[in-house]
Amino acid sequence: MNYALNNIPERTPKPRSSGMTMVMDKGLSLRQVEDFLEVSAEYTDIVKLGWATSYVTPNLKEKLNLYKQAGIPVYFGGTLFEAFIIRNQYDDYCRMLDTFGLQYAEVSDGSITIEHDLKCEYISKLSKQVTVISEVGSKDVQKIFAPYKWIQLMKAELEAGSWKVIAEARESGNVGIYRDSGEVRQGLVDEILTQIPAETIIWEAPQKAQQTWFIKLIGTNVNLGNIAPADMIPLETLRLGLRSDTFDHFLNQ
Amino acid sequence: MNYALNNIPERTPKPRSSGMTMVMDKGLSLRQVEDFLEVSAEYTDIVKLGWATSYVTPNLKEKLNLYKQAGIPVYFGGTLFEAFIIRNQYDDYCRMLDTFGLQYAEVSDGSITIEHDLKCEYISKLSKQVTVISEVGSKDVQKIFAPYKWIQLMKAELEAGSWKVIAEARESGNVGIYRDSGEVRQGLVDEILTQIPAETIIWEAPQKAQQTWFIKLIGTNVNLGNIAPADMIPLETLRLGLRSDTFDHFLNQ
Amino acid sequence: MNYALNNIPERTPKPRSSGMTMVMDKGLSLRQVEDFLEVSAEYTDIVKLGWATSYVTPNLKEKLNLYKQAGIPVYFGGTLFEAFIIRNQYDDYCRMLDTFGLQYAEVSDGSITIEHDLKCEYISKLSKQVTVISEVGSKDVQKIFAPYKWIQLMKAELEAGSWKVIAEARESGNVGIYRDSGEVRQGLVDEILTQIPAETIIWEAPQKAQQTWFIKLIGTNVNLGNIAPADMIPLETLRLGLRSDTFDHFLNQ
Repeated sequence: MNYALNNIPERTPKPRSSGMTMVMDKGLSLRQVEDFLEVSAEYTDIVKLGWATSYVTPNLKEKLNLYKQAGIPVYFGGTLFEAFIIRNQYDDYCRMLDTFGLQYAEVSDGSITIEHDLKCEYISKLSKQVTVISEVGSKDVQKIFAPYKWIQLMKAELEAGSWKVIAEARESGNVGIYRDSGEVRQGLVDEILTQIPAETIIWEAPQKAQQTWFIKLIGTNVNLGNIAPADMIPLETLRLGLRSDTFDHFLNQ
Repeated sequence: MNYALNNIPERTPKPRSSGMTMVMDKGLSLRQVEDFLEVSAEYTDIVKLGWATSYVTPNLKEKLNLYKQAGIPVYFGGTLFEAFIIRNQYDDYCRMLDTFGLQYAEVSDGSITIEHDLKCEYISKLSKQVTVISEVGSKDVQKIFAPYKWIQLMKAELEAGSWKVIAEARESGNVGIYRDSGEVRQGLVDEILTQIPAETIIWEAPQKAQQTWFIKLIGTNVNLGNIAPADMIPLETLRLGLRSDTFDHFLNQ
Repeated sequence: MNYALNNIPERTPKPRSSGMTMVMDKGLSLRQVEDFLEVSAEYTDIVKLGWATSYVTPNLKEKLNLYKQAGIPVYFGGTLFEAFIIRNQYDDYCRMLDTFGLQYAEVSDGSITIEHDLKCEYISKLSKQVTVISEVGSKDVQKIFAPYKWIQLMKAELEAGSWKVIAEARESGNVGIYRDSGEVRQGLVDEILTQIPAETIIWEAPQKAQQTWFIKLIGTNVNLGNIAPADMIPLETLRLGLRSDTFDHFLNQ
């Protein structure tokens, strides 16, 4: 840090298993990736190329290379997995992961409907090739699961081989664990945490109020995802109690 | 594209007459223009320097040059045209277009009130010098036209010499063809489309929900405008059914 | 300017005492700072590294150097001052200002509660070392002061040695002089202006509607703050009556 302040909460060092931040890149240029890394590489644990943006992004290999040189793993968003599945192109999907040298992949069912057993089978199979992150929760604002269901799905996916489960929120932060308004479904989160260890969950939390809420609930080293590149420095100050929103929280501890 | 996916809707190739995307640059630096072009040149058909930002933007000639080298035409926002007109400086406006070597210009009346005959006269005169894009709809949330009026205005402007007509929405997407809330005035759009060919209209659609709505109504190759540079890759995935919002839409076709 | 338009309101030239714009940098990379300066240096009077972002921003000295070379003073956000004060590290704070060669500092009490006499003492002491900007208004949406209180606080702080007083709004523009919705507390602003000279106040106004409101009330050369780097060109057009929102305002003068 640039100067000494007493009583700053301690952050986990890399490689992190808790205190992780997953960043969403939805189309940065190579130079923008470099700029992002200059400022935020230290705070970034993994980068997601949002949904199927990797299909249309130019210079994809060069981009993957930049992240690799910075020691930051990259995976392609779950919607891309679903786009291959719905087209019966699962084998093409696996080959594509190989072609780009990816070591992480996301399995999700936010836009398609599949039997949960089948989803777990994909997790199990894919986890032999790469590290699997799986996502729970629909992108459809109408599809709301009860807490016991979230727990059941998360447990089964972790058992099937997921390294982490992601709690869905989209880029906008208004579905899954959030209400339409972006407000957290608090009871849901509390109940999930009685059964699933916090460090195995990445909470998608694109909005500042959502990040604040999770930091207050779980602490400095909560795993957060879908963070916009430009929000990384602001998020780091929230985690350290150095922004108004969390300023009081850590002083009282 | 970076890998093969079956049954992806077909995009029109450049030079496009439908499937066009008009991007709004409201003050990018030269390097930011280069970054934008690296990622989105292929998907960008025309760039608007928003309203009168060209008046205060440094390095204007260098910027125009960057776009020119990329083969992407540029025009200055309609509010600039209106700023010249309201000051009785129409001749200065024409000279200014010449000085900067512009080959496109926008004629609008979003902030001023002029007789429609006079507006059409400007379109007619200007179309001898440059390719004219004209805009229908006020920037004033209070001024709401009936559908028959929109149709009448659009027809007259196309007859006067406009290459395309733009349906007003502002950078914020809350006037013209949208309600205050950003919601599309659906009946209005449907009625316009009974009389005006879709490929002659550029729909300003700065918000994702608006882009989604038009893609579902008109298809992959709808003309959309006022797209922010950073939203170009996301928009392209929407057009291809590769983001949750349009994922189902193209599968059922 | 890039071409001649008649009857454009006159902007104050640098160094400005009114017509100032304070920009908020919340984590730009070095190249992003260069890009910002290319476009907006001429319009930027002072830069704030938002709240305590300077604690976690890499390349801080290089960044300060870039702004220095452009002749633009930089200060660290008031929340950082408060973070030092609440930890009884005032002396460390002064040393830190020295280490980074800062010539401006902000004194605020947006996140902590201190006696106003003590706040004024800090202003008085610090103003012997640097130019002090002090901020009035809480970051807590619950804490609302009556107008006479705002006036009393501002007067006392200016007398204690503040160069300018800042009217609080946060990055989001929804506290202090604004309602929760972002709407200006008009009566409050009017009453403040009966007692405090406009040129000694910097109004935080991150939203376009807020900038517009103050430009219409106080004029082209109102002092505005918490402007996002990418909003500088748009703001300059608002100040000159070259965007729809203020287009009419200056024509009628």
